[in-house]
Amino acid sequence: MTTVSVLGSGVMATALAFPLSDNNHEVRLVGTHLDRDIIDAIKEAGVHPGLGLEVPETVRAYQLEDAEEAFEGAEVAMSGVNSFGVRWAGEQLASLLKPGMHVLSIAKGMDAGENGHLRILPEVLAEQMPRGLRETVSWSAVAGPSIAGEVAVRRDTCVVFVGHDASAAEKLAALFRTPYYHVWISTDFVGVEVCAATKNCYALGAGFMEGILDREDGSEVRYRNYNYGAALFGQAARELGRFMELLGGKPETPYGLAGVGDMFVTSMGGRNVKVGRLIGSGLRFSEARGRMLGVTLEGAAAIEVIGGALPKLTERGIVEPEDFPLMRYLHSVVGADEPLDMPWSTFFGGEPEAKAGKG
Amino acid sequence: MTTVSVLGSGVMATALAFPLSDNNHEVRLVGTHLDRDIIDAIKEAGVHPGLGLEVPETVRAYQLEDAEEAFEGAEVAMSGVNSFGVRWAGEQLASLLKPGMHVLSIAKGMDAGENGHLRILPEVLAEQMPRGLRETVSWSAVAGPSIAGEVAVRRDTCVVFVGHDASAAEKLAALFRTPYYHVWISTDFVGVEVCAATKNCYALGAGFMEGILDREDGSEVRYRNYNYGAALFGQAARELGRFMELLGGKPETPYGLAGVGDMFVTSMGGRNVKVGRLIGSGLRFSEARGRMLGVTLEGAAAIEVIGGALPKLTERGIVEPEDFPLMRYLHSVVGADEPLDMPWSTFFGGEPEAKAGKG
Repeated sequence: MTTVSVLGSGVMATALAFPLSDNNHEVRLVGTHLDRDIIDAIKEAGVHPGLGLEVPETVRAYQLEDAEEAFEGAEVAMSGVNSFGVRWAGEQLASLLKPGMHVLSIAKGMDAGENGHLRILPEVLAEQMPRGLRETVSWSAVAGPSIAGEVAVRRDTCVVFVGHDASAAEKLAALFRTPYYHVWISTDFVGVEVCAATKNCYALGAGFMEGILDREDGSEVRYRNYNYGAALFGQAARELGRFMELLGGKPETPYGLAGVGDMFVTSMGGRNVKVGRLIGSGLRFSEARGRMLGVTLEGAAAIEVIGGALPKLTERGIVEPEDFPLMRYLHSVVGADEPLDMPWSTFFGGEPEAKAGKG
Repeated sequence: MTTVSVLGSGVMATALAFPLSDNNHEVRLVGTHLDRDIIDAIKEAGVHPGLGLEVPETVRAYQLEDAEEAFEGAEVAMSGVNSFGVRWAGEQLASLLKPGMHVLSIAKGMDAGENGHLRILPEVLAEQMPRGLRETVSWSAVAGPSIAGEVAVRRDTCVVFVGHDASAAEKLAALFRTPYYHVWISTDFVGVEVCAATKNCYALGAGFMEGILDREDGSEVRYRNYNYGAALFGQAARELGRFMELLGGKPETPYGLAGVGDMFVTSMGGRNVKVGRLIGSGLRFSEARGRMLGVTLEGAAAIEVIGGALPKLTERGIVEPEDFPLMRYLHSVVGADEPLDMPWSTFFGGEPEAKAGKG
């Protein structure tokens, strides 16, 4: 049996404790400074307030000041914070990890340099370590369609563990696999992580389709707006493929769990879709944001990072101006607060001779 | 202004009359022998009963015995019947088409020979013509995510017109384009049509995820089953790609409107998903079918055709036995009436070392 110490006790980090516990591994959940109430609730009532579920009895919860104790003797470390906390998590792990440990990261997002250079988050996490430590630890990440609560109630879930070291990823996968939690291995670290980050951006657009219906009188409309969402989904899939070319992922990676699979699940609901829906109903992003104060919007943040990098990459001649029209458009809505007016004719390589009604 | 005569007056054929009418083209809708009541309703009340909407005033409706009159002087013919009626439609069109006309087909499905050889439906349609006529007519088809009623209420819709002759497809597209109906052109006839047919099969599987929830007590469950549906979606996307290799479509075709875009919209609801949901709830396909008597199930029919062809193609050495595990599994459920037990570990090239809980 393996000891897995987890930094961060949000819904996803905690949900992953369920398959681990089902396999009789020991899980130690360490809350960040933002998680104090969560840890208290688990200690006192055994319930994770965000998940609304009892955590397995074998899970032990620690406040951040007890992190060292929680990582004592652990073979596996999970970085369970979201994309906003990756640098912080790296700094913490620098003093908690021991040579030979295996690290599994769950954050979905990207980091952009001032010149638009895009990097995956496990790189950012790892570079917070001193080199000597960094190179004696294995770095893997989990991606693929996985709503945390569904994992925790043991619904069938298929994910990808990705890392440069396939045997380390497979070793981790073996700890997690249960009859409901299915794990595949990939060594396309860049491709899988870029898909995980960009699909969050595109899923925000999935909210538009519902929001547009909210503009109509009456809550019941006979015909929904799925054609709209499907067209965005198709363009998004195309752009996932273009990101592979741009950043060096494998061409087939978007067309499985980490790409369109995850984009499908993220389009079905959640905060990202909710803010998109408010925009669809007629609000500017800043107004929609104002109605969701205190809510973490990773998709919007990823749009700022990735969509914001594209003009810089275009200026440097790395990306064509007509490439990524949907990501650029999402950035104009989220980053520049423009109203919703989908530029359909720019999609799929440009609509030919789109004359009617456009002149 | 162009005269467009349409054979078949189902919801999709009729919905396409809306953008045409908005562009001031003349649409003549000819009912099949199954459409008599629809044509009567349009003639008497101007309403299409299936759509539940008034058809544009300029649309003229004809019973089948008046087809010749309806096709008099038409430049464009639409084959508006579904996949079950394609041979019949071809026989009718053989005496209705004139040299130089442009044909646009809307049926989504495939045809399989006894040895498993798979062909797209526009081929089947065209081969009902005498060769002299066939070669003087252009053949195109419409594909992509398009729920009929949403087109008819003028919601944004993005589709693909496909044909070997790009200029003919573009000529047709120009008749249809409006500010809400957006049309791209493809010459990948096989790829687009194979996507259109196979995504119908995979969308039936999308019903499983809801049906499984129906087994649980109480109508409200805190966590849905989207991880399940997303994993199927990912595997389906992968298989769309494999079908391109097998049948000669372009590798990029599945990853846009005709593939994952259309699969997304078809997964959102409809008859296909409904029968899948009944299966997910615990019924065998034959029982689910029995609850939907009189309902046309194109997805199930396509599974019989395409899933049924795979073992034959495997026997002939054209397809590997481990290829298309989801399509084969759907065929075991629909064709062989087996109960639902998703073979997750066969997906994505096979789950490595899937030991836990499997032994």
